[in-house]
Amino acid sequence: MGQSHRLSPPTPAQDCQELTDVERAIETVINQFHCYAVKGQKEYLTPNELRELVVQKLPHLGKVKCVGPLDEKIECMGDPDEAKLEFGEYWDMMGDAAKGCRRK
Amino acid sequence: MGQSHRLSPPTPAQDCQELTDVERAIETVINQFHCYAVKGQKEYLTPNELRELVVQKLPHLGKVKCVGPLDEKIECMGDPDEAKLEFGEYWDMMGDAAKGCRRK
Repeated sequence: MGQSHRLSPPTPAQDCQELTDVERAIETVINQFHCYAVKGQKEYLTPNELRELVVQKLPHLGKVKCVGPLDEKIECMGDPDEAKLEFGEYWDMMGDAAKGCRRK
Repeated sequence: MGQSHRLSPPTPAQDCQELTDVERAIETVINQFHCYAVKGQKEYLTPNELRELVVQKLPHLGKVKCVGPLDEKIECMGDPDEAKLEFGEYWDMMGDAAKGCRRK
């Protein structure tokens, strides 16, 4: 797996408090993309890599019915080892899963 | 602020292990929307509510230059107290901030 990535607080120096819980959460979602996007060297995920991420890291979210499980979406991505999913599309997919499991 | 929301693992019962770090991260991002979407009763955020979220919860991410700071995007949303940002648009904005601070 690729190494993880640290969100570095931007300058100026005094802005150096710790990341908030939400920033750490976003960092965690970014890191998963980097960890699993090995073939694409952090530029893209293949369907196989994304499926591995979903199975290992989204055992519950990945099965949310009301949105249509993620593996159906992965099926439509094309060649399991050649198709390329960039970060933006990955983020959108995570959003679909998030929308699916939002309960009021 | 609205109360938070728990991602409940879907049935069947044996699928009851704890959420993974990524699922908890996604849950955290969802919860912020619910916490700040008071006027819209968790259905939408107003620009003012989103600005408050960004200032309080994204002190670093919100200032990421390369994407264009979030407050510029909030400016374009319309009436600060009347315009409505639904969950999908909120998730997209968090994705913009995430894209902006991804470092290879």
